[in-house]
Amino acid sequence: MAMTLAEKILAKASGNKTVAPGDIVMAKIETAMAHDITGPLTVNTLKNEGIEKVWDNEEKITILFDHQIPADSITAAENHALLRKFVKEQGIKNFYDIREGVCHQVLPEKGHVLPGTVAVGADSHTCTYGAFGTFATGIGSTDMAAVFATGELWFKVPETLYFNVSGKLNDFVTSKDVILKIIGEVGFDGATYKAAQYGGETVEEMSISSRMTMSNMAIEMGAKAGLIEPDVKTTYFIKRAMQKHGTTRPYTALKGDEDAKFEETYEIEVNDLEPLFACPHAVDNVKTAREVAGRPIDQVFIGSCTNGRVEDLRAAINIIDQHGGIADDVRVVVTPASREVMLEAINEGIIQKFYEYGCVVTNPSCSACMGALYGILGPNEVGVATSNRNFRGREGSLESEVYLASPITAAACAVKGELIDPRDL
Amino acid sequence: MAMTLAEKILAKASGNKTVAPGDIVMAKIETAMAHDITGPLTVNTLKNEGIEKVWDNEEKITILFDHQIPADSITAAENHALLRKFVKEQGIKNFYDIREGVCHQVLPEKGHVLPGTVAVGADSHTCTYGAFGTFATGIGSTDMAAVFATGELWFKVPETLYFNVSGKLNDFVTSKDVILKIIGEVGFDGATYKAAQYGGETVEEMSISSRMTMSNMAIEMGAKAGLIEPDVKTTYFIKRAMQKHGTTRPYTALKGDEDAKFEETYEIEVNDLEPLFACPHAVDNVKTAREVAGRPIDQVFIGSCTNGRVEDLRAAINIIDQHGGIADDVRVVVTPASREVMLEAINEGIIQKFYEYGCVVTNPSCSACMGALYGILGPNEVGVATSNRNFRGREGSLESEVYLASPITAAACAVKGELIDPRDL
Repeated sequence: MAMTLAEKILAKASGNKTVAPGDIVMAKIETAMAHDITGPLTVNTLKNEGIEKVWDNEEKITILFDHQIPADSITAAENHALLRKFVKEQGIKNFYDIREGVCHQVLPEKGHVLPGTVAVGADSHTCTYGAFGTFATGIGSTDMAAVFATGELWFKVPETLYFNVSGKLNDFVTSKDVILKIIGEVGFDGATYKAAQYGGETVEEMSISSRMTMSNMAIEMGAKAGLIEPDVKTTYFIKRAMQKHGTTRPYTALKGDEDAKFEETYEIEVNDLEPLFACPHAVDNVKTAREVAGRPIDQVFIGSCTNGRVEDLRAAINIIDQHGGIADDVRVVVTPASREVMLEAINEGIIQKFYEYGCVVTNPSCSACMGALYGILGPNEVGVATSNRNFRGREGSLESEVYLASPITAAACAVKGELIDPRDL
Repeated sequence: MAMTLAEKILAKASGNKTVAPGDIVMAKIETAMAHDITGPLTVNTLKNEGIEKVWDNEEKITILFDHQIPADSITAAENHALLRKFVKEQGIKNFYDIREGVCHQVLPEKGHVLPGTVAVGADSHTCTYGAFGTFATGIGSTDMAAVFATGELWFKVPETLYFNVSGKLNDFVTSKDVILKIIGEVGFDGATYKAAQYGGETVEEMSISSRMTMSNMAIEMGAKAGLIEPDVKTTYFIKRAMQKHGTTRPYTALKGDEDAKFEETYEIEVNDLEPLFACPHAVDNVKTAREVAGRPIDQVFIGSCTNGRVEDLRAAINIIDQHGGIADDVRVVVTPASREVMLEAINEGIIQKFYEYGCVVTNPSCSACMGALYGILGPNEVGVATSNRNFRGREGSLESEVYLASPITAAACAVKGELIDPRDL
């Protein structure tokens, strides 16, 4: 029976020759991650259940701090301490303290994400790893305790929605605009418990970073996973990551069968795609930048697991540089997604320029995205962000508003001090 | 009548030929600063008193955000918004939003601090500006409202305690150790409402940055001000700051009369001075590093208005570099004191090295010093910090402990993972 990429991965991970949508399978987990917010509940659940040893402490479990780093409260410090103790007791090797950055950037960078396997993370944007041909999904902290104990988790095999993206992106339109367009079309719940799969010439042309942006936001239309078939770029990325960090885990990159059945195929043509905003207070409230241009803004946030990579920072600083700086009344918070990204961006001179133009560059972390530190919006403030969610209050006050956009569009807004289409700057 | 430096400045600022300790004078203020924590109360006091216009909006008043930047709570965002509005309404030109760094670094850098004048700040470490031969002191937010309204404030002319520092500092002993030695000798309240004045060959040899460390901590022995007579280094610093930022305020550098009467003169000989720690929970609980060495630590904080300048970061990274990195179990939080410091440190390759060694470099701000963000200590955690206060709970939990030290000693502790004398690394 022909299978989609998601089905093939779940079949392999569950030891079945074939699986079909709706099947319940018990899948072996190759990557399991918890962070400083979700990890403590996982650890406490394990303790309450009397589980003394995790199933794997060598390669498969990763604990990482990214949400509240360095600790911004005594509670955060306590959560960190609890997890450090757990990591030591269990001998977990893949542990990243406050120094590395956002989990969804760090895990692939360190070679912990494998094509053709199942990855789970106690964080909703775990679907990011779909960019590597991984069936990756966010799970709850208590489910994660079960995974830590057994290395397995049950899944209902999802139907696959296929997004066939064709056409050429231009200098002002990025993969962020593509995924915003898709979410706008499908709706915030239009892919609930489906596997989204992105393909077509446009996706093939995209860098790994741009693909990660697409996969990252799969959850924003309800999808269980957001997959892209691995290719030579994927292989190169994984190989380099493993080499750099001395990991050597075997994997088999899988692709879907050519005659696999998708529940639905969406044709997304991007030749005429315009810069977009996801407007308050929903990710699927998508409008063209020109439709909402002119509204004054207070803050621009450039960063997050969605758009905090070097290509994002480079694109943003180029816009600011071309126009000689940012507007006086706008504050710009820049957060590279990881230590590697920070170092590469310093090496390229990007961070220096952000500082010269008066942007604030924070340490690699989840930063303003989670609305808990580094750029909280006050009442009636308007923010533009390159992150993935703009629910009411996501970045601070319930009376604040967040517009999501690409780094190019966000940078253009920083220059202008208001919502703008970067082509009109 | 012969006068000390403090007396001369207060005489000039109050329009008196001479003043003597105990006199009450009304002094003209040349520099008045409020930040994001203290500013809102100043503004609300002005409003409650019906004051519509500040006395000067061109040069003398500075509003700056440094404690909670970028905003880490809705309340912080609201405080920022309140002050931005006030700055606009009043047309205050010296306004630094979230982008510049710690007030006591930024004001001198921007040319807002003048030798021979009186400066007040709604922050206790305003005494830092004493390094420029300024009579500078911290005042409360409501007193600041009076200054904002009138440009004047009354002072009781303080007695002066003179610290004559002689001898040569070595590679492991810095001005931080000198001031810790002094505070250890005098006690936390030994200079209450006195002017401390530092002089002698050792102080003359010191860089402006090292002098700022000395003056910064005057308040930690209760002193109203911590003065150093201006010299050619001072003049050069001020001139360069004004040139860079297009300020051109006239000033007359003053010195004390040679036959001026000090209440007391302390002879501080530093040839044999050893690296020191101010131990929990008091700044005057000073011990040699060797006395307390061996205690495991959790965190090292390198930054603050005391020791967050380029020479501090350079000294710290050199130690880490010489020893090939930091201990696995220690987290190191580095916070350059200002944007200028950050840019210079990137230019020198310092920040890159901190990142390479796994230190976390935050945006320029008050950071962990104030115990409200960027490195809160949890219960039973032990921190080493280059900042200025180690009162119980200053950096987080009431059950945490903080040891204050120089950047060299702090870096040595980061390398070793425990309290250590840098000579023994």
